[in-house]
Amino acid sequence: MEINNDSRKDECPLGEQDGMLYAEYLQLDKILNAQRMLSEVNNATVHDEHLFIITHQAYELWFKQVIYELDSVRMIFNKHKGLDESETLEVLKRLSRIVLILKLLADQVMILETMTPLDFMEFREYLCPASGFQSVQFRLIENKLGMKQENRVRFNQNYLCVFGRDEKGLEAIAKSEVEPSLAHLVEQWLERTPGLEPEGFNFWGKYKYNVKTMLETYYKSAMATDCESERAFKLADYEKRKALFDSVLEPNIHAAYVQRGERRFTHKALQGAIMITFYRDEPRFSQPHQLLTLLMDIDSLVTKWRYNHVLMVQRMIGSQHLGTGGSSGYQYLRSTLSDRYKVFLDLFNLSTFLLPRSYIPPLSDAMKSELNIHWGTPSNETISSNRTCSSDN
Amino acid sequence: MEINNDSRKDECPLGEQDGMLYAEYLQLDKILNAQRMLSEVNNATVHDEHLFIITHQAYELWFKQVIYELDSVRMIFNKHKGLDESETLEVLKRLSRIVLILKLLADQVMILETMTPLDFMEFREYLCPASGFQSVQFRLIENKLGMKQENRVRFNQNYLCVFGRDEKGLEAIAKSEVEPSLAHLVEQWLERTPGLEPEGFNFWGKYKYNVKTMLETYYKSAMATDCESERAFKLADYEKRKALFDSVLEPNIHAAYVQRGERRFTHKALQGAIMITFYRDEPRFSQPHQLLTLLMDIDSLVTKWRYNHVLMVQRMIGSQHLGTGGSSGYQYLRSTLSDRYKVFLDLFNLSTFLLPRSYIPPLSDAMKSELNIHWGTPSNETISSNRTCSSDN
Amino acid sequence: MEINNDSRKDECPLGEQDGMLYAEYLQLDKILNAQRMLSEVNNATVHDEHLFIITHQAYELWFKQVIYELDSVRMIFNKHKGLDESETLEVLKRLSRIVLILKLLADQVMILETMTPLDFMEFREYLCPASGFQSVQFRLIENKLGMKQENRVRFNQNYLCVFGRDEKGLEAIAKSEVEPSLAHLVEQWLERTPGLEPEGFNFWGKYKYNVKTMLETYYKSAMATDCESERAFKLADYEKRKALFDSVLEPNIHAAYVQRGERRFTHKALQGAIMITFYRDEPRFSQPHQLLTLLMDIDSLVTKWRYNHVLMVQRMIGSQHLGTGGSSGYQYLRSTLSDRYKVFLDLFNLSTFLLPRSYIPPLSDAMKSELNIHWGTPSNETISSNRTCSSDN
Amino acid sequence: MEINNDSRKDECPLGEQDGMLYAEYLQLDKILNAQRMLSEVNNATVHDEHLFIITHQAYELWFKQVIYELDSVRMIFNKHKGLDESETLEVLKRLSRIVLILKLLADQVMILETMTPLDFMEFREYLCPASGFQSVQFRLIENKLGMKQENRVRFNQNYLCVFGRDEKGLEAIAKSEVEPSLAHLVEQWLERTPGLEPEGFNFWGKYKYNVKTMLETYYKSAMATDCESERAFKLADYEKRKALFDSVLEPNIHAAYVQRGERRFTHKALQGAIMITFYRDEPRFSQPHQLLTLLMDIDSLVTKWRYNHVLMVQRMIGSQHLGTGGSSGYQYLRSTLSDRYKVFLDLFNLSTFLLPRSYIPPLSDAMKSELNIHWGTPSNETISSNRTCSSDN
Repeated sequence: MEINNDSRKDECPLGEQDGMLYAEYLQLDKILNAQRMLSEVNNATVHDEHLFIITHQAYELWFKQVIYELDSVRMIFNKHKGLDESETLEVLKRLSRIVLILKLLADQVMILETMTPLDFMEFREYLCPASGFQSVQFRLIENKLGMKQENRVRFNQNYLCVFGRDEKGLEAIAKSEVEPSLAHLVEQWLERTPGLEPEGFNFWGKYKYNVKTMLETYYKSAMATDCESERAFKLADYEKRKALFDSVLEPNIHAAYVQRGERRFTHKALQGAIMITFYRDEPRFSQPHQLLTLLMDIDSLVTKWRYNHVLMVQRMIGSQHLGTGGSSGYQYLRSTLSDRYKVFLDLFNLSTFLLPRSYIPPLSDAMKSELNIHWGTPSNETISSNRTCSSDN
Repeated sequence: MEINNDSRKDECPLGEQDGMLYAEYLQLDKILNAQRMLSEVNNATVHDEHLFIITHQAYELWFKQVIYELDSVRMIFNKHKGLDESETLEVLKRLSRIVLILKLLADQVMILETMTPLDFMEFREYLCPASGFQSVQFRLIENKLGMKQENRVRFNQNYLCVFGRDEKGLEAIAKSEVEPSLAHLVEQWLERTPGLEPEGFNFWGKYKYNVKTMLETYYKSAMATDCESERAFKLADYEKRKALFDSVLEPNIHAAYVQRGERRFTHKALQGAIMITFYRDEPRFSQPHQLLTLLMDIDSLVTKWRYNHVLMVQRMIGSQHLGTGGSSGYQYLRSTLSDRYKVFLDLFNLSTFLLPRSYIPPLSDAMKSELNIHWGTPSNETISSNRTCSSDN
Repeated sequence: MEINNDSRKDECPLGEQDGMLYAEYLQLDKILNAQRMLSEVNNATVHDEHLFIITHQAYELWFKQVIYELDSVRMIFNKHKGLDESETLEVLKRLSRIVLILKLLADQVMILETMTPLDFMEFREYLCPASGFQSVQFRLIENKLGMKQENRVRFNQNYLCVFGRDEKGLEAIAKSEVEPSLAHLVEQWLERTPGLEPEGFNFWGKYKYNVKTMLETYYKSAMATDCESERAFKLADYEKRKALFDSVLEPNIHAAYVQRGERRFTHKALQGAIMITFYRDEPRFSQPHQLLTLLMDIDSLVTKWRYNHVLMVQRMIGSQHLGTGGSSGYQYLRSTLSDRYKVFLDLFNLSTFLLPRSYIPPLSDAMKSELNIHWGTPSNETISSNRTCSSDN
Repeated sequence: MEINNDSRKDECPLGEQDGMLYAEYLQLDKILNAQRMLSEVNNATVHDEHLFIITHQAYELWFKQVIYELDSVRMIFNKHKGLDESETLEVLKRLSRIVLILKLLADQVMILETMTPLDFMEFREYLCPASGFQSVQFRLIENKLGMKQENRVRFNQNYLCVFGRDEKGLEAIAKSEVEPSLAHLVEQWLERTPGLEPEGFNFWGKYKYNVKTMLETYYKSAMATDCESERAFKLADYEKRKALFDSVLEPNIHAAYVQRGERRFTHKALQGAIMITFYRDEPRFSQPHQLLTLLMDIDSLVTKWRYNHVLMVQRMIGSQHLGTGGSSGYQYLRSTLSDRYKVFLDLFNLSTFLLPRSYIPPLSDAMKSELNIHWGTPSNETISSNRTCSSDN
């Protein structure tokens, strides 16, 4: 292959001087020279170890991106002790991106499943006690989302054992435990939902009143039933519903749930979330509602990833075997599937406290106006302030 | 298996009387009795014909859902001759749903690919000239999105031949060609983007001015280059850029593009789209920007579906064979992959006309205010109008 | 739109007479007229009910296809009381197809998630007590795969309550419980794995011997450790491993596991599965090994589908609420995620009983020959019997 | 956070001494420190540049894995100048893995699409003329699959310009052009398909004869048609079919197609592929048939990846703009979607030459026997040679 340097310059005159080459820009010398197969080092190459390394490295790359987005979103929330509306779109975009990445990671598990247990067995010993859940970055993601130490299953809590000698990693984890998590920042933001002020629209007062009215209707309808067994059934149903609504209406019952780790948000934040859900079609609540949905998506996908990971581990090492990393492997991982590991658990359970449309408190004119978008005072620059983006009525 | 009716009633007392059973509700008697294998009727059952039927029926079910969403979105746009901001969230949700459905349909092609050509050959003759692109619903989706007759390749234009005896289908298609398409409604809405008024913010005037300034800078920088060959290169680059921008600055050049089908939007609508892209972080442009992105997603996915379908057809019948449906099959389908079949082509090409941040015209205070969200006049109900959803600075 | 029948005939002369039209073939009149929104019937149309119906109908269509494939595979197994090797490819193809369909169904859940709880609440009442897990076809899939009544959680066992008045459905379910399931047929086939005969290659005798040798080595290595705490640790590890292997070596311990539902296969079938896993590269074991992998894939995906479904239900109705269908909804569904619902649990746990390559019993020449592929006696038709598909060593 | 080293040792006594930690094993110090944002270096950080880097690095990691699998498969083929049947399973597994990886990569494009053109514009200048298709590894994948220089579009051919100063990369590419590609090795293997020998089963002779018989039947049926216009139509159809079959029956016509790059395989290899397709249910052809299917899957997915990539690029830079890398960007990329870039084009077109089952030449007993699996001579070790893996009839 003959290289004629002159003709080369002619065809791509700027190629030589400006800008940076793809491979240099991506630092591919680092990325593509970081695969050292221990089985090869031990003179007993196991073909599939290469896949094991690449898959986990790809995970870590994406984890880094997730952390990058999470940090930026937390910073935006933190800056204004809330969320400036001119940055909501950016927050939504970044959370959507996290959702897409997590979807990819959940799918990626299937590639690792093409490795068979027999192959894995052949190089597993070299990496013991290294194991997948020693990922510092995954722990950081959990913490930055808002996973709390006290909700973890016991084994996992002692990460000294899990993360061993990685001083820098331990430090980053310790820091992530004291910094405000996304869940915490969202909680603070929800507490300031406009309309919650008791002296103002007083959403919660209205909600409470309507729940009571609704429950009374149930009760009366039950009592009006002639057939005894049916009446008993309906009354039991009424009692159950009442108990559920009491749990959100009574601050002390709510507090008890929080104590047990079955709820997370403060009572006020929960009120904000319910309010946004009811009035999501009001312009100012549209993006907040999208935001709440994305938070659930993220929680779901982290859990799905865990689940796919658990099934893969069960294939590789069996559900009765010792896992790598010194824990009981599969059994440990299964335990992380519980609702304890859902950071935005309250958003999932929100549906419990929704009301049929007919019981949703109507917005007052003032509130409607506050949640709507009003055009600014027409300047002399703009003659037709009513010629809007949307309609011209 | 002994059935004790009494105990049964006890366990689910309400089960017998209220509501509708799952199977009845879903009309599964219709859905699950609509698979008649022609190969079986002809006493030469081909196992894979069942898959062929089910796959296409699943497509049609989802097509119906896409049409349902598309119609509802078009109705919302049409109602206000624009888009009422209190309905934007709903529109975004429905378009997002279409995106998810189209993703599913693109993936679904892989299932049909498990049928081999030899299997297909065995029952293909029964259904000739029936073929996949005879789907009335798919044609309706294209039309309702805004695919225009004149942009179709010739063969496909004569749907009398394609849709044959299906009178009701033909009628629906004819109707879809005269009703306002989504593309048309979006175009009208874009034309009313606030800030385009020449007497007001006059976005286009400012854009024009800045483009000219930018091009002049390029030109000067090129002329200032000593090395002759490099200067020639830079001048050529300048000329190319200038030609591109002229094509959007000069209404008559734009009109010529539209004439040739290489652009679709009116000049005014294009201005609106560019403006929304520049100022997407302003609260009132956030959702419009999300909307434009979703329209591109839909266009992309329709095209990806076509592409996956083309590859599948190539496998089944080869690229040199006669397709079912009497056309040249594969060759016809390939032709629908061209940019002519992209309804929102202009949005894809928008990036051509973007400017580096430093050249984007800054918003005037009046415009900034118009695009921002202002809180309504504080009513006596609300004491603290500044305790907002977002921040309390 | 003018229709000129003559020109029409000219362009597609055969279009009018032969074959069947796409819409007729697919019986779209049935498929596309089976969506009746109860909310519309009740004059309070809820837009999202349409999605609810379409999604569930699409599920049912695919369930029908899965059943069609499952039945055909069971028939092939049943015909020969095993698996004729000339039909293995077809079995693999059909199981792979089921895998692809199940993947699609797991993804499909995300579309339904775009419905919000508030929307769902508005039409949920009409369909009570109808609910997703009343699908007769899904129950059939479970049964045909080999899900046993005794492994189900209690509530679900009483399908009289679940499937109510659907006589035909109840009948189909009853039949599926007595017919040989895929798991049962696979078990029988595994029991006949060549090489298990005690008088022949006697795989199990050799396996037993090697396990014992391996465990002894562990024990000796532990005892040879000087440091007391380390020795204690290693001894404990040895004990655990010994207990695990005893559970498969001792038929009565295995039987106890089966009794408790923690294992499913007979002792002999388990031996077959281990043997195929060890010698998967021998030509005659290649496809059997692919088959075992596909069975695990199917089990995994059914579980993933359940899991995605559970998360979706949690969003819709909360985890503390009453589900539709009269059960405790979410809590019930969660319970189906346990390993009890995994039909091919033993295959997942196989990895527990694998041995490092150095302990795998080498094949005898006779066994090697039996598992290899030998060319038939060269006929006078074939001169060069060694000119083979693969190599010409 | 207090660290008690003693208690730590107690809980994980082996954790300190053996094996390698997760982060060290994966060399995360390299992987996670290879992201240098040029916009940051230039003091104008663009948030989305991080995503751009991570996405491309993830691509490159997976490309490395694809190359690793491709090389191993090529080595297996090359070792035996064919494919040893005891390694077919491994080859199938590795090709399946490539399929899964390529699917992931096609999906991954959607993540990068969350970057908007305006964001991209802000850091694009730093990396000019670096661009996505400068990936040396992607070029290696193409070459190792069997993409030939002469089938590339002109611009791309001059990779001196594309890959610039990367000496090592250029060398690897040069090597990949002379080494036997997968397509070449598959071709050689197909040429040795048992049954092609003219003196033996003589598949091609039989195929030719049956094609002629079939075409004659068409012709007669056409001539027997009374209606003139219909007869003309049928005769034209006959002529088309005849021309198609001639193109594969006549070696010189086939050679002309090859010359023009519209076919790739030698005449003999094409015969082998047709034969395997016809008799895929014969045990010895099952895995070869799976292999041919996987090769098409790979080709399809590479093309789908290209397509998704093209749509993403169109969004980022428009279809009328200059691409990065100095080429005409979008237009160049679009050109790579043509069938010229399909390595296993002949397999896709195979369906053109299939015959209805009734015309497929029946296997002779000798051939049937050669393609079947025969059990080895019963040794005295095995008493019951007929107790087989599959059936005992």
